[in-house]
Amino acid sequence: MTPITTQDYSIYFNENAYTSLNEHLKASDYSKIFFLVDENTNVDCMPFVLANIDAEISYDILEMESGEENKNLDICLGLWEALSEYGADRKSLMINVGGGVITDLGGFVASTFKRGISFINIPTSLLAMVDASIGGKTGIDLGHLKNQIGVINTAEMVLIDTAFLATLPENQMRSGLAEMLKHGLISNLEYWNKFLDLSKQTTKDLDTLIYESILIKKDIVAQDPHEENVRKTLNYGHTLGHAIESYFLSNADKEPLLHGEAIAVGMILASYISTKLVGLDETTNQEIKATITDVFGKVIFNEKDYAPIIELLIYDKKNEHGNINFVLLEAIGEPKINCKVSNELILEAFNFYAS
Amino acid sequence: MTPITTQDYSIYFNENAYTSLNEHLKASDYSKIFFLVDENTNVDCMPFVLANIDAEISYDILEMESGEENKNLDICLGLWEALSEYGADRKSLMINVGGGVITDLGGFVASTFKRGISFINIPTSLLAMVDASIGGKTGIDLGHLKNQIGVINTAEMVLIDTAFLATLPENQMRSGLAEMLKHGLISNLEYWNKFLDLSKQTTKDLDTLIYESILIKKDIVAQDPHEENVRKTLNYGHTLGHAIESYFLSNADKEPLLHGEAIAVGMILASYISTKLVGLDETTNQEIKATITDVFGKVIFNEKDYAPIIELLIYDKKNEHGNINFVLLEAIGEPKINCKVSNELILEAFNFYAS
Repeated sequence: MTPITTQDYSIYFNENAYTSLNEHLKASDYSKIFFLVDENTNVDCMPFVLANIDAEISYDILEMESGEENKNLDICLGLWEALSEYGADRKSLMINVGGGVITDLGGFVASTFKRGISFINIPTSLLAMVDASIGGKTGIDLGHLKNQIGVINTAEMVLIDTAFLATLPENQMRSGLAEMLKHGLISNLEYWNKFLDLSKQTTKDLDTLIYESILIKKDIVAQDPHEENVRKTLNYGHTLGHAIESYFLSNADKEPLLHGEAIAVGMILASYISTKLVGLDETTNQEIKATITDVFGKVIFNEKDYAPIIELLIYDKKNEHGNINFVLLEAIGEPKINCKVSNELILEAFNFYAS
Repeated sequence: MTPITTQDYSIYFNENAYTSLNEHLKASDYSKIFFLVDENTNVDCMPFVLANIDAEISYDILEMESGEENKNLDICLGLWEALSEYGADRKSLMINVGGGVITDLGGFVASTFKRGISFINIPTSLLAMVDASIGGKTGIDLGHLKNQIGVINTAEMVLIDTAFLATLPENQMRSGLAEMLKHGLISNLEYWNKFLDLSKQTTKDLDTLIYESILIKKDIVAQDPHEENVRKTLNYGHTLGHAIESYFLSNADKEPLLHGEAIAVGMILASYISTKLVGLDETTNQEIKATITDVFGKVIFNEKDYAPIIELLIYDKKNEHGNINFVLLEAIGEPKINCKVSNELILEAFNFYAS
């Protein structure tokens, strides 16, 4: 598959990935490589990555514990200290090998170490491939507030090796699928329609779906890198999705949801709200709910969950001047940003979801 | 005095400062202002700042404890949490009112909160006016390693009100003077010569010296914002200066040195080394030592301090590929970057300083 190029960097696929990495390492003047991995990618992915690097350059592997709950400042501190201790300088390169937690946090650690060193993303989860690792958003959580701290800074290059997906648990695959479904909903009816019967898709189809998903995101980011307007559409399902994710993460009675699992709920809620506020037709709303619950099943909420989830919305990064800004759908592929939604309508949407 | 404009922002002086701030606030769409202050600037400067703001916009004051030892991640965490709690959103503005610790740390906190909110610097110390608050470097210390974590990101505007200097202790004035002396040494013999007899300078002369110092720094930064070449000359005296500062900060037996006090020593050491490696003439070397010690007196070192100070050089942010890069002087106004210096010569320079 042809590399996808953006203004600042390129995304290379499968057969081209390691060739391009090796060419880049040879052409650059890095003093050392630091790989950031978790306990899974260290075992499942690193041997393969190392076997494919033929540049003669010294490296260290920094391992952090997997899981969203580790996407925090303490882990950053440990990594900054490790980089200092192992003699990282401004010409050092960080290569993030892992899912969204690794690419988000690793990008932030690299972007702030000595006021910024270069980094490369090798996303190993579906979510990181189609979303987290591209577009230049880096960050960590602040307590239970998602991505509250971070910077916008692009990787030197992104390498997509879909072979890594074979090692991924099914719930992690689903989590990534949520963002792909979102890309269809906000921009491309034809792409969305490919998901209506997922059982017909083969592994090769998946590669194409991933490629197209990245193209969609890349085009949106290119139009609006600093999220002034069209990039906001990528937050479809995320306003309530993030609040639900934060709530489940901070609530001892709940099993944490994966990012995509929470976003899946958020998209159904936003779709229902869209029928009430911006004229999304009811058939499409039902199709969205059916397609998403078909993949994700249903998350069980209690009545008492709704109020604290709604309260968490005030922390959403997209808020401005005290207003909570939803992305809604007038139709599939026709999103509308900066929509105001009442708490009553959000409650109604939760009831629709549960029904 | 005419505003100094850079590619990204402007620096306004005294009579123009608050007018420009008020115009900017009226023209912008900020949701709220957060002032970052320390216990001194809250009392000495904030009443004056607030009295001069005539925009109707709500604000909160965030106070942190003064001192370099507080330029750390814990304080950032507290500020990020406070911003979240007080409802800061992406349209919020942070105004840093204080010395270099406040402008460096406040710039970093703002640049990373929700992936970046706007900030304005109102430097209240001489050091912050002529150096820290301009040029876009933000950051915090990591343990005893200075400015190890940070980003490059410019303020929306910088306001210089030299009236604040009247509240500054004498050692703080000296600390700022070190960077002004440096600006002369690395770029402008005429400017340096103005410092040869400081006793002849009046308060009005000081305003002019500050203005010229900012112009020198601004021109250097504009030529090389990402410190690939000429901006490195601003590190004259800083390689050993930072190591000395870190050593005194982390050593229980020593009284911490102010930044400028450490840089003053570093500049004398670098000047001596320059005579040995790049042909700085001996008379100039003696003149530099005399002029600087005239202002700063002499720091007392023990023989046993030298080795650990030299060891700290490996953490210098300007190092690349394991090499420690010194800025030296061929003559006043003629700096040379990327010079390698042996440990023996550094020891010799310390002996020259002590003699």
